[in-house]
Amino acid sequence: MLPREQELLTQFRAGKRLALARAISLVENTRPGFEALLHEIHADLGRAQRVGITGPPGAGKSTLVSKLTLVFRGRGERVGIVAVDPSSPFTGGALLGDRIRMNNVSTDPGVFIRSMATRGSLGGLATTTKEVADLLDAYGFERVLMETVGVGQSELEIAGTADTTVVVLVPESGDSIQAMKAGLMEVADIFVINKADRPGADRLAQELEVMLHMRLGEAQPTAAGHHGVSLKSVGKAARQRSRAAAAEQGGWAIPVLKTVAQSGEGIDALVATLDRHAVYLQESGALSRRRQARLAERVRAVVDRRLRTLAWLAGPGEQILEDALPALESGDESPYAVAARIVREMELAHQRY
Amino acid sequence: MLPREQELLTQFRAGKRLALARAISLVENTRPGFEALLHEIHADLGRAQRVGITGPPGAGKSTLVSKLTLVFRGRGERVGIVAVDPSSPFTGGALLGDRIRMNNVSTDPGVFIRSMATRGSLGGLATTTKEVADLLDAYGFERVLMETVGVGQSELEIAGTADTTVVVLVPESGDSIQAMKAGLMEVADIFVINKADRPGADRLAQELEVMLHMRLGEAQPTAAGHHGVSLKSVGKAARQRSRAAAAEQGGWAIPVLKTVAQSGEGIDALVATLDRHAVYLQESGALSRRRQARLAERVRAVVDRRLRTLAWLAGPGEQILEDALPALESGDESPYAVAARIVREMELAHQRY
Repeated sequence: MLPREQELLTQFRAGKRLALARAISLVENTRPGFEALLHEIHADLGRAQRVGITGPPGAGKSTLVSKLTLVFRGRGERVGIVAVDPSSPFTGGALLGDRIRMNNVSTDPGVFIRSMATRGSLGGLATTTKEVADLLDAYGFERVLMETVGVGQSELEIAGTADTTVVVLVPESGDSIQAMKAGLMEVADIFVINKADRPGADRLAQELEVMLHMRLGEAQPTAAGHHGVSLKSVGKAARQRSRAAAAEQGGWAIPVLKTVAQSGEGIDALVATLDRHAVYLQESGALSRRRQARLAERVRAVVDRRLRTLAWLAGPGEQILEDALPALESGDESPYAVAARIVREMELAHQRY
Repeated sequence: MLPREQELLTQFRAGKRLALARAISLVENTRPGFEALLHEIHADLGRAQRVGITGPPGAGKSTLVSKLTLVFRGRGERVGIVAVDPSSPFTGGALLGDRIRMNNVSTDPGVFIRSMATRGSLGGLATTTKEVADLLDAYGFERVLMETVGVGQSELEIAGTADTTVVVLVPESGDSIQAMKAGLMEVADIFVINKADRPGADRLAQELEVMLHMRLGEAQPTAAGHHGVSLKSVGKAARQRSRAAAAEQGGWAIPVLKTVAQSGEGIDALVATLDRHAVYLQESGALSRRRQARLAERVRAVVDRRLRTLAWLAGPGEQILEDALPALESGDESPYAVAARIVREMELAHQRY
């Protein structure tokens, strides 16, 4: 570790807020030394409850996060928040508004909010976001909230690797979420119907209860667990999670709660449910299984990222590819021959971590 | 190349249909020798027009593909079709129905249909699908149609790497596609509003025209091209495509067509537009740029796949990870140290391709 990162680590461990912000930037931009820092803090992880909060755009996730934060703060707990902003031209504005509404908590020194734009950087994003959550955990926040818009595989994956995942819906989202229901069902530990003062909340709650019940029924005769439908596009981590969930079968009946985050209605019940889930995870051994799955997934992601770096960013890939383009186009060379050359000329790293 | 694959290649080149089916299976299952086969056929690529057809579930893509195929067949052109089926518990049934409806063309020896289920295998899927399209191209089909459901990044990526990409919408999809419009806009060369006899077709057409016009306007003052909105989750290939598209600025005004695939209405106009786009691509030099971008993307994908294979399937990854799990969980080892060990103990391949 370089002296500069060593100093950062010392400041971070001393609880300096600026060091936290710097550490996050280092990780977010995958600058040299970021993995060494994450390596060093690994032993400090696992004290925070990580709550993933996901759902369609406009479900009021940020308001919910903001209200949850106020309750946690009232109990003296410190809260770290990672909000993933898909920076779409269509939803960007709304999310920015959400961020601003969160400001009632953002001046509190016991709260740290980091908003991360995806900037089209899928794949890598999920890992980086989880690494930022690690930093918040290691820094000492008792609750780490990860808010993501559940529109893509990557966002679901982030939420789905939390200790506890809350899927937020609104009464009118009934139809529009059809397409992603499967994915959302996979990751949910708790369903919240927000804006529940609007028409349709009871019907959606009933629909969800029926679906949850069906899946419970489906799972009973098989060993495949209470997540009975086929696993779609939720990624390896979520599948591992689901397998872990299968082992927990019967231990946790996924609740469907109703909230009106704007007025604060139902927030206390949600906090109580989050607490109850934390206890359940601990006592059933599920927490350990989830964290093991998360660690295995992290190792895979780090290996893949490192290999891509060694091939492309720090390796021979770009130059070989550029030189080969004319021959590729003329058909004189195949992509497979060029790829083999790149792999052959790579030098595997000798870093310790 | 092993004698068995050599024989397969000989049969494939002789136009044997069974050899095509076998070659596709080899590639689809990434069985030993599949890259060697793809390497061998590389020089035969580039004769087919590849048309990507994407859009939300229920837009009538399969019916459209089926009707397009009939027109192409009427002109004596042979048609290869790759249909990517996201095998969701919610849409699976409908897609199976679509497949069956396609049967009026599936007994024609000038038509070859391959349906590929995603089985949750994102990431790898996109590359495999494109490699199957390569086989159809090399085999000698004049048109290769790639049908994907535009619900995920992967599917968009497949469609978006065709020579010509058709985005199919239906009048009632106006709202539900909000979330993915950005992605769809990125990849579209031609918009089709199918089921245009339903209410709302004209309004959707106008909305699209306005959006396309706005983006054209946005792009003019910058060098960033006529795809002016920020690039979201469409992946590197599409970004390269988009950059290529920027270079073509002004040459192709994205048309919005209306069809009723069921009755055949508008199909001839769509075929004429596909022909016109093929000519445009050729004459403007855009075809060459798109294919170069596609080749570069392929090299990247093959390198990444090979490295993952060398780390995990054929390498030390799984064993090292399994052994390290207890130490990872106790905090004695970090995922970064374990990942470094896996990379260090990998052996880079010495295959020629």
